[in-house]
Amino acid sequence: MVVKVYGPDYACPKRVIVCLIEKEIEFETVHVDGFKGEHKEPQYLKLQPFGLLPVIQDGDYILYESRAILRYYAEKYKNQGTDLLGKTIEERGLVEQWLEVEAHNFNPPIYNLVMDLLVHPLLGLPSDPKDIEESEEKLGKVLDIYEERLSKTKYLAGDFFSLADLSHLPFGHYLMNSMGKENMVKERKHVNAWWDDISNRPSWKKVLQLYKYPM
Amino acid sequence: MVVKVYGPDYACPKRVIVCLIEKEIEFETVHVDGFKGEHKEPQYLKLQPFGLLPVIQDGDYILYESRAILRYYAEKYKNQGTDLLGKTIEERGLVEQWLEVEAHNFNPPIYNLVMDLLVHPLLGLPSDPKDIEESEEKLGKVLDIYEERLSKTKYLAGDFFSLADLSHLPFGHYLMNSMGKENMVKERKHVNAWWDDISNRPSWKKVLQLYKYPM
Repeated sequence: MVVKVYGPDYACPKRVIVCLIEKEIEFETVHVDGFKGEHKEPQYLKLQPFGLLPVIQDGDYILYESRAILRYYAEKYKNQGTDLLGKTIEERGLVEQWLEVEAHNFNPPIYNLVMDLLVHPLLGLPSDPKDIEESEEKLGKVLDIYEERLSKTKYLAGDFFSLADLSHLPFGHYLMNSMGKENMVKERKHVNAWWDDISNRPSWKKVLQLYKYPM
Repeated sequence: MVVKVYGPDYACPKRVIVCLIEKEIEFETVHVDGFKGEHKEPQYLKLQPFGLLPVIQDGDYILYESRAILRYYAEKYKNQGTDLLGKTIEERGLVEQWLEVEAHNFNPPIYNLVMDLLVHPLLGLPSDPKDIEESEEKLGKVLDIYEERLSKTKYLAGDFFSLADLSHLPFGHYLMNSMGKENMVKERKHVNAWWDDISNRPSWKKVLQLYKYPM
C-alpha cells in the first residue's frame, strides 16, 4: 500500500516526506491549496479535524501531526533505510528530547519570522517590527545552545543523524533561503557545519527538487 | 538508582511524576523555586540549558522536555506498571498523534489563560482581555473536536488510557480548579466523563496530595 501525503508544497508535510525518503517508503502526494483554504473544507476536516497539514493515509490508517507521523514510520520500519531513532533506549530518549526542543524552542520563533517576513507581505498584511525583533532574539539564544551542543556531538542527539535533526529541515530552509537571516546560522561555526551536513542529504535535495515552497 | 525530578511544584514536572507513579518507578524530587529564578541559575542551566522545568537525573543519564521523559520511561519500562503506549505500532502512532495535539492545540491556549488569569495577577502585572477572549475561543474549538473524538472512543488514542490522556492532567487541573473556566469541560458530556475518569486515577490524586501547585 502506497502512503498518501497531503499538502506536499507546505513545510510540515515536507518533514514527513523527507522521512519517508530516508526510510525508503513508497508514497504519493495529494495537492492541498492552503491559500484557497482547502484544508478547512469538510472533506479535508474528515481526515484532519483541526484543519492543519499534513495528514497521511496508509490504507485504512489515518494519522496527523507531522512529528507523530515521523515517529510512526521510523519505528515501523526500524530496520529499513536510515535508522532515525538511535540504537538504544537512552539514545532514543535524546532523540525525543531534541525533537521536542525543535518543536517548542526552535520552531516557534522561526514560524513567527516566516509569518512576519514572508506570509504577511504576500497577503498584503502588516508585519510587526517588535515581534520580528523578539523572535530573532529568541532564535539567537536557541542557536547559541545548539552551538554549544554541536561542539560536542556531530548531530543533536549524539553522533548519529536522527529524527531530531531531520525535523529542522523544512523551517531551517526558510531561515537559510528566503528571509535574509542566514547569517544567524553562518556566524555559528558548529551550527553551520551541521546545517551544511543535513541540508545536503540526498533525501532533502530530492524533496526540494520535487516540491516547491509556496514562498 | 532512584530518578531525581526537578521542580515538582510546577505543572510540567507533574506530567513526569504522574507517569513515574503509573509506571511504578521510584523517584525523589528536588525543589526549584521558579519565582526566585532558580531555574535560570548556572547550576541548573548545566542540566537544562534552556532554563526550563523539568529535568530528570537517572544516574548519569540526564533528560529534559517533559513529553520526551514520558516516552523514555513508558518505553523503558513497557512491561511494568500501566502500559501507556498502546499494544501495537498503530496504537502507538495514535498515542503520538494525540500527545502532539495536547502539546500544540490544547496546551497553548490553556497556557495563555494560566498566564493571564493566574500568574499576572499574582505578579501584579496587567492581563490582556483580548488574549483571554481569543484563547478561550481557541480552546473551545479544540474541546469540540475532543468531544467528537471521545464520543467514539473512551480515551483519546482509543479504548485504552495512554500518555496522550495523562499529558493533559497538569494544565487540565488549572482549567478545572483555579480559573473559573470549568464549564468549558462540564458542558461537553464526553470530555467531562473523560476528565472525571483520568483525574480520579490514584496516580494523579497522589501527585496532588504530595505536591502543591504554586497558584
